[in-house]
Amino acid sequence: MSRFFSEKYASLVPYTPGEQPRDMQYVKLNTNESPFLPSPGVKAAVAAEADRVQLYSDPECTALRAKLAEVYGVRDEQVIMTNGSDEVLNFAFMAFADEKSPLAFADITYGFYPVFAKLNNIPYEEIPLKEDFSIDPCDYCGIGKTIVIANPNAPTGLCLPLSAIEEILQTNPDNVVIIDEAYVDFGADSAVTLVDKYDNLLVTQTFSKSRSMAGARLGFGIGNEKLITDLNTVKYSTNPYNVNRLTAAAGIAALRENDYYMNNCRTIAENRAWTTEQLTRLGFTVLDSKANFVFAKSAAIDGETLYQRLKARGVLVRHFKKPRIAPFVRITIGTMEQMQILIHTIQTILEG
Amino acid sequence: MSRFFSEKYASLVPYTPGEQPRDMQYVKLNTNESPFLPSPGVKAAVAAEADRVQLYSDPECTALRAKLAEVYGVRDEQVIMTNGSDEVLNFAFMAFADEKSPLAFADITYGFYPVFAKLNNIPYEEIPLKEDFSIDPCDYCGIGKTIVIANPNAPTGLCLPLSAIEEILQTNPDNVVIIDEAYVDFGADSAVTLVDKYDNLLVTQTFSKSRSMAGARLGFGIGNEKLITDLNTVKYSTNPYNVNRLTAAAGIAALRENDYYMNNCRTIAENRAWTTEQLTRLGFTVLDSKANFVFAKSAAIDGETLYQRLKARGVLVRHFKKPRIAPFVRITIGTMEQMQILIHTIQTILEG
Repeated sequence: MSRFFSEKYASLVPYTPGEQPRDMQYVKLNTNESPFLPSPGVKAAVAAEADRVQLYSDPECTALRAKLAEVYGVRDEQVIMTNGSDEVLNFAFMAFADEKSPLAFADITYGFYPVFAKLNNIPYEEIPLKEDFSIDPCDYCGIGKTIVIANPNAPTGLCLPLSAIEEILQTNPDNVVIIDEAYVDFGADSAVTLVDKYDNLLVTQTFSKSRSMAGARLGFGIGNEKLITDLNTVKYSTNPYNVNRLTAAAGIAALRENDYYMNNCRTIAENRAWTTEQLTRLGFTVLDSKANFVFAKSAAIDGETLYQRLKARGVLVRHFKKPRIAPFVRITIGTMEQMQILIHTIQTILEG
Repeated sequence: MSRFFSEKYASLVPYTPGEQPRDMQYVKLNTNESPFLPSPGVKAAVAAEADRVQLYSDPECTALRAKLAEVYGVRDEQVIMTNGSDEVLNFAFMAFADEKSPLAFADITYGFYPVFAKLNNIPYEEIPLKEDFSIDPCDYCGIGKTIVIANPNAPTGLCLPLSAIEEILQTNPDNVVIIDEAYVDFGADSAVTLVDKYDNLLVTQTFSKSRSMAGARLGFGIGNEKLITDLNTVKYSTNPYNVNRLTAAAGIAALRENDYYMNNCRTIAENRAWTTEQLTRLGFTVLDSKANFVFAKSAAIDGETLYQRLKARGVLVRHFKKPRIAPFVRITIGTMEQMQILIHTIQTILEG
């Protein structure tokens, strides 16, 4: 830290991204990336856009928003595009939470929520997941706080039905409820269908996982037009050109080839079922994931040891040194070939 | 505004980007973009990177920082890469200014400074430019505030010599001095040469202007390693993957072909000299710009009228409805052909 660093941020503990070691080639199952290449149109679109990169991008993302609104069955004005969904989450925390409207989220969920809260000096309550790691919707009903729920949740993969989300929306009419659907395309129901019904609902999603674009940084929010207006006020006071031309072009191309991605999501769901079955066979407890990862533990080996032994054998998974979830590892679902390597490697470790 | 919008931001007046009208094809001289395509390697690099876009970008921008550090003659640890230079400016305002270290910047300068200050609730003082629109370094000496100076300044194009910047750095040893060098490649001296000498200096630059990448969003900060550490604390608490893979690849390719861009900058300087000469011939007062734009006024026509008449004839320039500078228009320097159209069109307007 320099002697100039503002006291406001001196105690900030930044988010820790998943490791990206470069010492060898790993079977990389630690950051929930897609194992599939982007669709063919993406490369062509990006190359063509390189010839226009000397001109500023469109701050309104007009063409991209229009295409996305069409695919999601909403109006353009209900959409904001951002530099990954981290950005729309940060904007939403800034816009809709403060001392008067503190935040509430699960004790075990996406690790960036408390970081954003501290960054913006917003008080927050961490609501414990139930013993089975599911969210009890009753814990959020009528609490009068700005609520953020990852659905499916990370790193558990468990999800809430829309009926539970509606209950939370209805009982907190004066607070915004943010549903972070980063993993929704792998098997959960999206709350996007509810945005016309609830003016306090903001849904966030990302192209990082289901659309093979983690490295292009494209996220979005869908909600009531007035919520989107507020998010735009923050965006235009932060970084109006947040989505660059290359990424916007890639996003439009990906939406045009949406079937390719939705088909990939079905493959991931199949591979997830197979992986769950195999891990269960090996004695693991595997939570019922609707995401592109599984969260699993074994009585035979603790989470950190398993993570380290897998890494030593060239398979990267993620382990969180946190109370309650330390026995688990989070395993991204990749191709069937990758999952076979994983299972085989775990088997070897357990037999060793 | 929604009924949920935090009071903290209710009075925020966002930045207004330059207009991007789509009603017709304009000679676009309003947002200081480069008239030159990116160098040949950029397109190839971006297309190749599209095949890796399913993987997260490197939060540390290792390869890009190394190449940039090499080109600028600094160490990797003295560099942070950001989503445009707006982002590094925002991070720097957050990190190095607060109630205890309020901000100071010119009354006429980049319009985003007061927006960032208000966004982050940082008090600020606007120091009037001199009558001739230059900055008086004495106004900043020993003021004990976090200082930000655009050098060359926008929209005037005027610049300070490094000796003046050193005086400001030396007399404010307990405050960070941010030198925003968005336009430095068009003829001013860069303070990057001073970063080893002053631990309170942060220099920010962008690929938007001199490197034809406004639409790719790539900026950077160079300064003492401890300052960079603090900026990274903010970055990792905001958006660790702020620079996407496509943009990073474009940036590396551009730095490899740096001569192409520096040659373009010389062409812009030549076209600027020609444009200044022609405008002077037509009776304009033109400030001595070292940027890729000129700031000019005429006793024969007020700034807003000239802007509107040029727009009606297909030439876009920028006009600011602000005290002191309302008589002026800011004209981006483009190709010689574009500048000839501009001069011819102004001549027609003045003769009309």
